[in-house]
Amino acid sequence: MPSYPDHGQPDWNLSALIQALRTSREHTHKVRHRGRLRELPSRAVLKDILQGLAAAMFPTHYGETDLTDESIDHFVGNTLNRTLNLLRGQVRRGLLFLSDEDAWTSEALDARAVEITRHVADSLPEVRAVLVSDLRAAFQGDPAAHSISEILLCYPGFVAITYYRLANVLYKLGMPLLPRLMTEIAHSATGIDIHPGATIGHSFFIDHGTGVVIGETTIIGNRVRIYQNVTLGAKRFTENDDGSLRKGEPRHPIVEDDVVIYAGATVLGRVTIGRGSTIGGNVWVTQSVPSESSISQAKMCRD
Amino acid sequence: MPSYPDHGQPDWNLSALIQALRTSREHTHKVRHRGRLRELPSRAVLKDILQGLAAAMFPTHYGETDLTDESIDHFVGNTLNRTLNLLRGQVRRGLLFLSDEDAWTSEALDARAVEITRHVADSLPEVRAVLVSDLRAAFQGDPAAHSISEILLCYPGFVAITYYRLANVLYKLGMPLLPRLMTEIAHSATGIDIHPGATIGHSFFIDHGTGVVIGETTIIGNRVRIYQNVTLGAKRFTENDDGSLRKGEPRHPIVEDDVVIYAGATVLGRVTIGRGSTIGGNVWVTQSVPSESSISQAKMCRD
Amino acid sequence: MPSYPDHGQPDWNLSALIQALRTSREHTHKVRHRGRLRELPSRAVLKDILQGLAAAMFPTHYGETDLTDESIDHFVGNTLNRTLNLLRGQVRRGLLFLSDEDAWTSEALDARAVEITRHVADSLPEVRAVLVSDLRAAFQGDPAAHSISEILLCYPGFVAITYYRLANVLYKLGMPLLPRLMTEIAHSATGIDIHPGATIGHSFFIDHGTGVVIGETTIIGNRVRIYQNVTLGAKRFTENDDGSLRKGEPRHPIVEDDVVIYAGATVLGRVTIGRGSTIGGNVWVTQSVPSESSISQAKMCRD
Amino acid sequence: MPSYPDHGQPDWNLSALIQALRTSREHTHKVRHRGRLRELPSRAVLKDILQGLAAAMFPTHYGETDLTDESIDHFVGNTLNRTLNLLRGQVRRGLLFLSDEDAWTSEALDARAVEITRHVADSLPEVRAVLVSDLRAAFQGDPAAHSISEILLCYPGFVAITYYRLANVLYKLGMPLLPRLMTEIAHSATGIDIHPGATIGHSFFIDHGTGVVIGETTIIGNRVRIYQNVTLGAKRFTENDDGSLRKGEPRHPIVEDDVVIYAGATVLGRVTIGRGSTIGGNVWVTQSVPSESSISQAKMCRD
Amino acid sequence: MPSYPDHGQPDWNLSALIQALRTSREHTHKVRHRGRLRELPSRAVLKDILQGLAAAMFPTHYGETDLTDESIDHFVGNTLNRTLNLLRGQVRRGLLFLSDEDAWTSEALDARAVEITRHVADSLPEVRAVLVSDLRAAFQGDPAAHSISEILLCYPGFVAITYYRLANVLYKLGMPLLPRLMTEIAHSATGIDIHPGATIGHSFFIDHGTGVVIGETTIIGNRVRIYQNVTLGAKRFTENDDGSLRKGEPRHPIVEDDVVIYAGATVLGRVTIGRGSTIGGNVWVTQSVPSESSISQAKMCRD
Amino acid sequence: MPSYPDHGQPDWNLSALIQALRTSREHTHKVRHRGRLRELPSRAVLKDILQGLAAAMFPTHYGETDLTDESIDHFVGNTLNRTLNLLRGQVRRGLLFLSDEDAWTSEALDARAVEITRHVADSLPEVRAVLVSDLRAAFQGDPAAHSISEILLCYPGFVAITYYRLANVLYKLGMPLLPRLMTEIAHSATGIDIHPGATIGHSFFIDHGTGVVIGETTIIGNRVRIYQNVTLGAKRFTENDDGSLRKGEPRHPIVEDDVVIYAGATVLGRVTIGRGSTIGGNVWVTQSVPSESSISQAKMCRD
Repeated sequence: MPSYPDHGQPDWNLSALIQALRTSREHTHKVRHRGRLRELPSRAVLKDILQGLAAAMFPTHYGETDLTDESIDHFVGNTLNRTLNLLRGQVRRGLLFLSDEDAWTSEALDARAVEITRHVADSLPEVRAVLVSDLRAAFQGDPAAHSISEILLCYPGFVAITYYRLANVLYKLGMPLLPRLMTEIAHSATGIDIHPGATIGHSFFIDHGTGVVIGETTIIGNRVRIYQNVTLGAKRFTENDDGSLRKGEPRHPIVEDDVVIYAGATVLGRVTIGRGSTIGGNVWVTQSVPSESSISQAKMCRD
Repeated sequence: MPSYPDHGQPDWNLSALIQALRTSREHTHKVRHRGRLRELPSRAVLKDILQGLAAAMFPTHYGETDLTDESIDHFVGNTLNRTLNLLRGQVRRGLLFLSDEDAWTSEALDARAVEITRHVADSLPEVRAVLVSDLRAAFQGDPAAHSISEILLCYPGFVAITYYRLANVLYKLGMPLLPRLMTEIAHSATGIDIHPGATIGHSFFIDHGTGVVIGETTIIGNRVRIYQNVTLGAKRFTENDDGSLRKGEPRHPIVEDDVVIYAGATVLGRVTIGRGSTIGGNVWVTQSVPSESSISQAKMCRD
Repeated sequence: MPSYPDHGQPDWNLSALIQALRTSREHTHKVRHRGRLRELPSRAVLKDILQGLAAAMFPTHYGETDLTDESIDHFVGNTLNRTLNLLRGQVRRGLLFLSDEDAWTSEALDARAVEITRHVADSLPEVRAVLVSDLRAAFQGDPAAHSISEILLCYPGFVAITYYRLANVLYKLGMPLLPRLMTEIAHSATGIDIHPGATIGHSFFIDHGTGVVIGETTIIGNRVRIYQNVTLGAKRFTENDDGSLRKGEPRHPIVEDDVVIYAGATVLGRVTIGRGSTIGGNVWVTQSVPSESSISQAKMCRD
Repeated sequence: MPSYPDHGQPDWNLSALIQALRTSREHTHKVRHRGRLRELPSRAVLKDILQGLAAAMFPTHYGETDLTDESIDHFVGNTLNRTLNLLRGQVRRGLLFLSDEDAWTSEALDARAVEITRHVADSLPEVRAVLVSDLRAAFQGDPAAHSISEILLCYPGFVAITYYRLANVLYKLGMPLLPRLMTEIAHSATGIDIHPGATIGHSFFIDHGTGVVIGETTIIGNRVRIYQNVTLGAKRFTENDDGSLRKGEPRHPIVEDDVVIYAGATVLGRVTIGRGSTIGGNVWVTQSVPSESSISQAKMCRD
Repeated sequence: MPSYPDHGQPDWNLSALIQALRTSREHTHKVRHRGRLRELPSRAVLKDILQGLAAAMFPTHYGETDLTDESIDHFVGNTLNRTLNLLRGQVRRGLLFLSDEDAWTSEALDARAVEITRHVADSLPEVRAVLVSDLRAAFQGDPAAHSISEILLCYPGFVAITYYRLANVLYKLGMPLLPRLMTEIAHSATGIDIHPGATIGHSFFIDHGTGVVIGETTIIGNRVRIYQNVTLGAKRFTENDDGSLRKGEPRHPIVEDDVVIYAGATVLGRVTIGRGSTIGGNVWVTQSVPSESSISQAKMCRD
Repeated sequence: MPSYPDHGQPDWNLSALIQALRTSREHTHKVRHRGRLRELPSRAVLKDILQGLAAAMFPTHYGETDLTDESIDHFVGNTLNRTLNLLRGQVRRGLLFLSDEDAWTSEALDARAVEITRHVADSLPEVRAVLVSDLRAAFQGDPAAHSISEILLCYPGFVAITYYRLANVLYKLGMPLLPRLMTEIAHSATGIDIHPGATIGHSFFIDHGTGVVIGETTIIGNRVRIYQNVTLGAKRFTENDDGSLRKGEPRHPIVEDDVVIYAGATVLGRVTIGRGSTIGGNVWVTQSVPSESSISQAKMCRD
C-alpha cells in the first residue's frame, strides 16, 4: 500500500519485468548480424530528407516563401547539400540490410552510399519533370482545382506521388528498407499506400486518395486517373516448395494508358486493364479487361 | 573517389543540379504575378488557427484543462485575440490568389482581410451551436459512445466536421485556397475529406470516417449519418467549349434529411437520396432514390 | 476603418464574442461533476506512453538504435519507469469519468491508479509474446516483406495492433476513455480503427490497413488476415424502452480462425464467418457464413 | 579491440560504473526524508513562472506585442491563471523542504501552497508599483537611456530587481529553496546575485550589473544606485558552540537612502553607509561611513 | 477552504488583480504613440539575426560543419537572404522609436528599413576583416590559445566583439533600441557589456571578459588588450538646466593604441590613457595618463 | 525603389556579398588540414554531455525527480550509455585538432576515441567523491546555505567546479579543444572561468563566483575558498626567440591549503599564497605571501 500517495512513487517491480522482456526478446529476432549491431534508418530523418528534396524541386511552395530571383538558387543549393548529406547517412544504414553485407568493408559501404546518393541527386531534374506532368494532370482532371498552387499545397495525392517517385529511384538501385519507409511516410500522412516497386507513367492523378493501395509489381501507364479506396492488389501468392511465399513474383495489375478507376474499385492479380477503359466504383475485378471497356457494379437492389 | 570517407564530405555536383532544376522551374508555373512575389499561406499557421478557434469554442476540451469559472473567459478572450490576428495575416495572403487582385491597393487588402476575419469571429457562436447539434447526433447515433467528452476527444469525425464548418464560413465569403487548406488539414489527420464548398445541415454524424469523401457541390440535410469510406462524388465533368473542365457546376449528390449511408457506399453525380432513405454498404449509386428507400448491394456469390 | 493598417491591431469585438460563447456553453454539457473540475487525459501524454511501452517491448526498433547487451536492460528499465509513472497519472484522470467516482476518496483513486498501472506493467511480457506472433504472421502473409525489421518499421498494421493490444488491457480492467483515446491515436496515424473492446486472437495481420474498422464487440480468432477498407461493423442497434441505444450489446461479427477478408469487404451484425473462409473484396455480408466458404461479389457488368 | 569500429557500439563497463556510483551515493546525502521521496522544484518551471509574472505586470513588453485595449486584460488574466497554477505546484514542492514538514498532512500542504500562492498574487500590484519607481530611477540615472522601453528590454539590472522583488515576497513568507532558485535564475542571466532575503527600498538602480553581489541580511534604502562588481557582503561569520556557522545572523551592510556605490567597490560586514554618501570604484570598506561621505581608493602608483 | 484539493483548481481572485494591474498600468508609460501601437523588436529574433550574420561571416565555425567548396557559398547566400529579411523586419520595428516617426508614411518606413538593412549587408566584408584582426590579436595575446578555431569556439570576448561590431554599424546609422538590444544579448551570454556607441579600433582583445563595461562615448585605439572586470565608465554626468541628464555628452575614456588594462581596473571620465601604457589590476583611474605609463595599485598592507 | 513594399522582397545584392565574403575567407585561416575537412565539436552536444554526466553522478538533482530505489540504477545506466556514446563522437572530432593527426588512420582515431571515453567513464566515481567534498565545503562555508539540495540546485560555483573537474579529466589525457569548450559552457552559465588545465584540490568552494578567473597553470590546494571577481592570473608572458608567446609555461599562482581569497582580489604570476593565508577584497597581489598571512587593501581615502 502506497503510504504517501502524492509524495512518493510506487514501485513497479521493474527487475522482474525487465527479466521477462529480456527472455521474450531472446526467443525472437535480434537486429544483429554476426555480432555487428545494425544502426537502423531513422523515420524522422527520412521525413526530413523527403521534405528537403521536395523543397529543392519546388522551392517556393515546399521551401520558403520569401525567395527571390537572387536568392532561390542559394536556397536550392544549401537545401540539397544538407539533404544529400543526410540521405547518404541513411543510405549507409540501409545498406546494412543487404543479405551480402558481410562481404563489404567499411570503405566499400561508404563509397556505395555516396554513389547511390549521387544517383538520387542526378535524377532530381527528371523526377521534377514527371511531377510537373502529374501536376498538370491534376489541374486538368479536377474541376475543383483553381490553381497549380492549390494542388501543390492541398492535394494529398500529389504528396504521395512525389514521395513514391523519389522512393522508386532508390528501389530501382536495389536499396532495401529505405524506399518502403519513404512511401510509408506518405501513407501515414495521406492514406495512400504506393509500393516503391510499382512502375507508374507520367501524368498520374490520384484524387482524394484515402485508402488507395498500389502493389509492388503494379505497372501503370500514362495519363491514368484513380480515386480514393482503389486497390491494385495481388489475388493470391505463389508458394515455394517449402511453403514460403515467393518474393518478387509479378502478381499485381497492369493498367494501360488513359484508364480511369473510380472510388472503391478493387483490381486483383496480374490482370490487364486495357487502354482507355473506365472501371466504375466499388467493382471487384479479377480478370483482364479489353481496351476502351466500361465496367460497373451489378445492379443494386431495393430491399 | 572519396579519399577520406569518414572525415570529409563528398561533392554532389551542386552547380549542375541547381542549373538543371532552375531550367526545369522556368518551364513551369511561377508563383508570381506581374512581378509580385506572393507569400503563400502557411499550413502550420492554419493548423494553429484551427486549434485556436476550436479551443475558443470548447475551452476545457481543446484548450486547457485547469480552467475555472473565473479564468475561462480570459482564456477564451486571449485565445481569440491571438488566433484572429493570425487568421487575419493568413487571409491577407490568401486574398492575393484572387484573380482580380491586381486592382487592389495594399490598404484595400488590409481592410478586406480585417473584414473577413471579423466575419469569421462573429460567426463563431453560431458555428458552435451547430457543432453542439453534431455532438448530440454522435452521442445518440453510436452505442459505443459513453460521454460527450469521449466524442470531443476520440471521434475523428467531429474534428473533420469542426474544421469543415469553419472552412465553410471562409468559403462562402469567396476566399480562395484557405478553406481547402483547412479541410485538407482535417483530411490528413482523420482520413475524412470534406470539400469546404459542401453544404451540410445540423446534427451530422460521421462514424469512423476514414475514406469519406464529400464533394464541392454536395448538399446534405439535417440528421444525416454516414460511415467510413462513403463517397459523395461527381460522376462526370462538364467540359467547356475549349475542352477544359467547367468549374463550380453542380455535380455532386443531394442527400436529404434523416438519411443513413453505410460503409463503402459510393454515390455519384447530381442525384438525390430522398428523405429518410438507407443506403447499404458498398453500394454504387448513380441514380436518384425516392424518400424512405432502402438500397443494398446485389447478392453475393459463393464461388 | 483601420487608420494605421500595418502598425496597429484592429479590434475584434471580443467582449460580445466572449459573452456569446459563454452563453452557448451554458446551454451544453459542462465537464464538471458536482462541482469538481475534471482534469482530462492528455492525448499528447498518451501518445508518449504508447511509444514508451512499445520501446520497452521492442527497444532496438522503437527505442534507441545504439543499444548494446550491457545497456539494453537499463534502457528498458528507465523507459518503463518514466512511462509507467506517466500512465499512472493518466489513469487517475481517466478514473474520474467512472460513473460512481463520487464515492471515491482521493486516496482510493491514487491506489486504484497504481493498481491498474501495475496490471498493465505485468501484462507487457504476454502482450509482447502475442505481438511476436503477429509479426510472424505478417512476414509469412506478405511476399513483399523482406525482414522482421521492415514490418516493425514500415507496416502501419503492426502499429495499430500494438496500440490495440495495449488499449485492450486497460479496457478489460473497466477503464473508461483512455483505451479509446489510445486506439484513436493509432487510427489517426494509420487509418486503422480498432475498438479497444474487440477480442482478437494471435497471429493477426492487417495489410495496408487504411479504412479498416473493427467494432467494439467483434471477436476474431487466430491466424486471421484482413486487408484495407474491411469493416467488421454493427448492422443495427438495439434501442432501450426510452428510445436510447442499448450500450455494450453484442452487435459485431465473430470471425473464426484462419479467415481471410479481402479489401473493401463489409461484414455487419452479429454474424459468424466460419473457420477457414475467404471473403472476397468489396462484398457486403450480413449473414453468417459456414466454415471454409469462399464468398465473392456478384458479377460485374459491362455497361 | 572494437572490431567493427563504425558499425557497432563499444561496451562501457556499465555494471561496474553503476555499482561504483551507487556506492558513492550511499555515502552521501539522499534527497529523502523518512522514506518520502521529495519532488524537487523545477528550475525550468520557475523560469516560466517568473516570465509569466513579469508578463502579467508589463504585458506589452514581456508578454505579447499585439495587445489592444480590448485584449490586454484577457492576456493578463489568462497569463495569471496559468502562472499561478504553476506556482502553486512549485510552492507545494518547496514546502517539503521545511524542517517540520513531517507533521503536515497532504491536505495541509495543499492548503498552505494555495495560501502562499494567493499571497504572491495579491502582492503583484504593489510589486509593480515599486518596479515602476525602479524604472524611473534607471531612466533618470543613466544618460545613455533613451526610453522606458529601452530599460524594460535592454537593462539586465531591471530583470534582476524584478526577479528579486518577486522572490522576496516568497522569502518573507518563510518559503525555503524557491526564492533562492528564483534569484539564481536572474544571476545566471545577468551576473547580478541578489539574495532574496535582502531588504531593498524603492527607486533602486543597478547599472551594467555584472558581478554585483548583495547578501542575505543587507538593508538598502531608497534611491540607491550601484554599479557593476559591487559587493555588499559579509566579513566574517559567527560560529555556534559546535563550530558550525550561525545562520540568519545580521552580517551584511546597511546602505541608507541616496547612496551611490561605484564599480568594483566591496563593502563587507554589518557596517552602515550613511545617507547620501558616495563610495568610489574598487574601494574595500569594512567600517561604517557617516552621512554624505565621499570615499575613494588610495592614490595609485606610477611604477 | 479548497474542498477537493487535487481535483479542482482554486480561485485566484483574478478580477480584482486584473483591475489593480490595469490601474497600475494607467499611471505609467504606455508603449503607444498618438494612438499607434508599436510593435516592439523581438530579442529572440535579434539573437537569430546575430547568429545568422556571424554564420555568414564564419560559415564553418558558426554555421554548419559539413560545408564544402561547392556548398559553402550557397550556405552563405541562403543564410544572408533569410537573415537580412529578418533584420529588415526588426529595423522597421525599431524605426518606430524615432522621435520624428509620426511624420513618416508606411512606405517611407519600408524604404528606410530596406536602406538600413542593405547598409548592414554591404558592411559585412569590412566587419569581417576587422574581426579577423581581432582573432589574430587574441591568438597572439594569449599563450593558452592553441588555434584560431579555439578562439572562435571558446572565447566569449570574441562573441562580444563580433556582436558589438555589428551593433555599431546600426548605431552609426542612427537606429534606436536595436543596437542596445544586440549588445545586451552579448552581455547576457558573456558578461561583457560594450555600448554599441563606443568606437573601437582593430586588433582588439578582451580576455576572460566577465564584468567588462565599455561606455557609450569610449574611444579605443588599435591593438588594445583588456581583461575581465575592467570598467571604462563615466565619472559624473552633466545636467541640463532642468536637472535632467544631458544625453550623448562625451563622458567616457579615450584609450590610445597599444594599451593593456589588467583585471579589475576602473577608468572613469573623459580621461586619456596614453599610447602604449599599462594599467595594473584593480586600479581606479580618474585622471589622464601619459603615453607609455605603467600604473599600479598602492601597496597592499599586511594586517 | 521597392515598388511593392509589402508583397515582394527586396534584393540584397547577394552575389557581390557572397563574393566579397569568399575573398575575405581566402585571406584567413581555413578549418582544413591537407584537404581534409574537419568536423568541429558541437557546443550543444557538449552541453548535453555535461548535463548527462552530472545527472549520472547526481541523478535525483540533475536527472529526474521521480526516481526510486528500483529505478535509479536504470536511469544511471541508460544516461551513461547515451552520454558516453555522444562523448565518444565528440572526442573523435576533437582528436582531429591534434598536430600529428595526419599520421592517424581512421581506425586508430576510432580506437583512441573509445579509449579516452572509457577513461572518462572510469573516473566518474572518483570525480563524484571529490565533488561531494566540494559540496560539504560549500555547506560549511556559507551560513546562507540551508541544505545540500540548495547547493546542488542554486549555487553556480558548484556547476562551474563540476564542469571543470570533468574537463580536467580530458585535459590530462591531452585532448585539445574539448576541455576548453566544456569550461567555457560553465563560464557562460555562471560567469566563472576556470581553465581546464588548472589543478584544484578537494573541498573547494567558490561563493557567488561571477568574474572569477583561474588560469591554466594555477595550482590550488585543499579546503580553499574564493569569492566573486577573484583573479588567479598571469602577470607577463615569456616570449620565444621569434617573439611568439611560449605556451604551457607555469605562469599562474600556487594557492596552498586552507587559503581564503575575498571578492575582487587579483593574484598574478607564479607566486605562492602560503597555507592558511587570507587575502582581502580588491587587493592586487604580485608577490608570494608566507603561510598564515592576512593581506588587505591600502587604506581608503575620504575625498
